[in-house]
Parts: sequence; structure tokens; C-alpha cells
Amino acid sequence: MEKGKLYLIPVPLGEEALHTIPTYVIQRIHQLDFFIAERAKTARRFIKRTEPQRPISDLTVFELDKHTPESGIEDMLRPLREGKDMGLMSEAGCPGVADPGTLVVDAAHNLGARIEPLVGPSSILLALMGSGLNGQNFCFHGYLSPKKPELAKQLRAMEQQSKRHRQTQIFIETPYRNQSLIEQVLNVLSGSTRFCVAADLTKPSQYIVTKTIAQWRKQKIPNLHKRPAIFLIGDF
Amino acid sequence: MEKGKLYLIPVPLGEEALHTIPTYVIQRIHQLDFFIAERAKTARRFIKRTEPQRPISDLTVFELDKHTPESGIEDMLRPLREGKDMGLMSEAGCPGVADPGTLVVDAAHNLGARIEPLVGPSSILLALMGSGLNGQNFCFHGYLSPKKPELAKQLRAMEQQSKRHRQTQIFIETPYRNQSLIEQVLNVLSGSTRFCVAADLTKPSQYIVTKTIAQWRKQKIPNLHKRPAIFLIGDF
Repeated sequence: MEKGKLYLIPVPLGEEALHTIPTYVIQRIHQLDFFIAERAKTARRFIKRTEPQRPISDLTVFELDKHTPESGIEDMLRPLREGKDMGLMSEAGCPGVADPGTLVVDAAHNLGARIEPLVGPSSILLALMGSGLNGQNFCFHGYLSPKKPELAKQLRAMEQQSKRHRQTQIFIETPYRNQSLIEQVLNVLSGSTRFCVAADLTKPSQYIVTKTIAQWRKQKIPNLHKRPAIFLIGDF
Repeated sequence: MEKGKLYLIPVPLGEEALHTIPTYVIQRIHQLDFFIAERAKTARRFIKRTEPQRPISDLTVFELDKHTPESGIEDMLRPLREGKDMGLMSEAGCPGVADPGTLVVDAAHNLGARIEPLVGPSSILLALMGSGLNGQNFCFHGYLSPKKPELAKQLRAMEQQSKRHRQTQIFIETPYRNQSLIEQVLNVLSGSTRFCVAADLTKPSQYIVTKTIAQWRKQKIPNLHKRPAIFLIGDF
């Protein structure tokens, strides 16, 4: 029996950013009955905002997190095995990038199902585009350590790696720790290193600024408390 | 005088993929008079396909390549300095990612202009999403060496890096060399390493398959000659 297709559905980076989702993605969402998402409630809220013809209650949404066991993922993929298409969604951004969606894509590959990534917003990619730092060679590290001495070590290692390979280093932080992260970056890195702060991407309050560490030290640190942000460093 | 904004405009990954560009991006394109692109001819052809109300001949398109001197970029950005918005386009995909657009974004940051990255297709991101490999930690290397011994060295180094950091390694090749690259990957890497081949992304002929090197060795190599492709390896 032919397997269903797994559609990877990007989700806007904020409530007000539905315009960032191409029409063909919305149309695809409206054709699917089965979804996998991190939180069923926010997934249903997003689908509802795309104005489907059918009641949301007709849809099945399976919940996935990084602790979901392999057997749980196999259960979720039953529709796919039975030839039905499914949609995988992230909480915000692209599934499989900085989220647990990878587990599902991997399992779908093992089933021999077709994978169809759809186009939409990724804060990592938008930040890289907007940074002006090298986009021909870059590395995304996810979250760094919350412990100050370890964080300082990681930042210095990234600065070295950036210099050695002309490679942009990208990382994130939980939004309530943005301010202390920026302070630590300005303390630890050398004056000539370039540092980009990209926050609230695709929102009206979007902020993307790249300066050298020396320039950043001379100005007031922007207030990014609780605003989702991406950080990039480049030293070349 | 307030500077113009620099909009970073994604371009479809193939002639037939206009549907991957969100409507708000098309609307933005129709509001701009000044563009920077790698090739004016293909940029105008793309803009024409978005069906603007005005004749294409009214638009100014500056050409940029990796050899454009800094002074040339400053000249191009004159409209921005004079308060007019501009659009930066890639040949395909997102400007500033694996293309020379970075030079323009960097210069616009130095002018203090606002940078507005817009949402659209990136073959690198779509490949990462579709691969099922780790999307929480990944590295894009651009083109590898065309020389076999050096290429083998680079592949082994990436395999090591992938294992050590649980980090997905992403790279590209000029499409007419895809077959010999795949052969070299299958020769050089260890059987348990996972290898994803993602080609013709967003096109009807899209191909995304992830298998271990041992599994790949048992099957016929897919014919990707002259088809744009992204390659990913993961060993974890």
C-alpha cells in the first residue's frame, strides 16, 4: 500500500504574522485531517486562523515533545502508514529546525514515506539574511549554557571558530535571559568581532542590528527582555 | 534624512515555483523602484512573472557579484541613502545565504538603514527540515573542494564533527558534479553515517531521501546530474 505524504508546515513567528505563510501552504493545511504538533491547542488556534471550511473539531492533532518515545511516534504515524497524508507543525517557525519535529521526519523516512517540506518563516534564516554576516558558511548551535563560566568558554570558542573558518556562529537564548546573555557577550568577546542582535522577526517591532563589540559597548543595550531573539557573531 | 529600507527578497527555486513566495512579498516587490540582483535579466524576468502593474522598464536593477568593489556597492545604495526603499534579490532562494548579497546587507547596516528580510524558499532550510537529521545543531559549509583527496579529507572531518557535536553537516556542489560527489561520499564515509540527498526542492520532481551509507551502497545511485541538490550528513 502506498504511504501517505508527510507535509512539514511552517507556523508564523507571532500571532500577527499569518501573512508570512504562502497561500499554497494554507491550501495544503485545509486538505489534511491529521496533524502532529508540540501543543494541540496552539496548533488548532493557528489552523483556525487560516479559515478552513471544516470545523476544527474534525481534525486529529497528535502531541509531540522531545520526550515522546519512539513507539509513541510510530502510533502517531499510523495514518501515514495507511496511505493518509499528515501535517507536522512547530510551535513557531519551521518543523525540524530547532524543535523536536526531527524525530517524526526520521520515523517517516524509515517508513519510506515521501517528505514534503513547505516554505515559511524561520527566525534563524531571517536573522542570517538580515545580519550581513557570512551566509556562505555558518553554524547554528541552539541554546548555550546558562552557567556564566561555561557560557564565556562557549562564546570564546565560537569567536575562534568564526575567525578560523570565516564562519558565522548563530545561537539562541530563552527570551527572559536575553539581557544577561548580551551583557556576557559584550564582556567576553573582542572589540573587533561583529555581533548581530535580531529580535521580533516578521513583527512590526522587528529589530536587526549588527555592530562590532566595541560599537555595542558604547551604546545602551537594547531592551529585549522576553522578546524572541537570535544572536549571531562573525569575526572576519 | 531618514534612510530607505532594504528589503531582502527571496526568489523561487525554479521557474515553476512562484507559489512558494508569500503574497506580502509580491506586494512589496510591486512597491519598489530600485533593485540589486546578481543578473538584471533574470531579476526582471522574475519580477515580470509577479505581474506588476507598471512596465518592467521603469525599474532600475543594479548588478552585483562577488567581485563588485565596495565603492560599487556604495554607488548602488545611493537610493537608500536618499530615503528610497530598495530590494535585494538572489538568483534563487534567500539573499544573503550562500550568495554575494551579504556585501550589500553589510553596507546597508553601515549606513544605519533598516533591513527587512522577507520570507521565502531556501533550499538549505528545506533540505534540513526534510532530512530528519538534527536541526538543533547544524553547520552549512557551502561548496567543498573539487579535488578528490582534499574532498575526502573534508568529508571525514565533517563526519567527525558531526559525531563529536551531534551536528548535522550541510554542503552543496555544482549540479554537473553531483554524481561524482555522491560516489566519493559513499566511498569515504563509514557505513553507519546517515546521508541525505535533497534535490529539485519545491519542484514536482523533488527528491529527499535519507539513508545510512551502508543502505545507500546497496542501491543504485539516483541520477541527479545537473539537478540542484543539497547534501547532509549526520552521525549520531
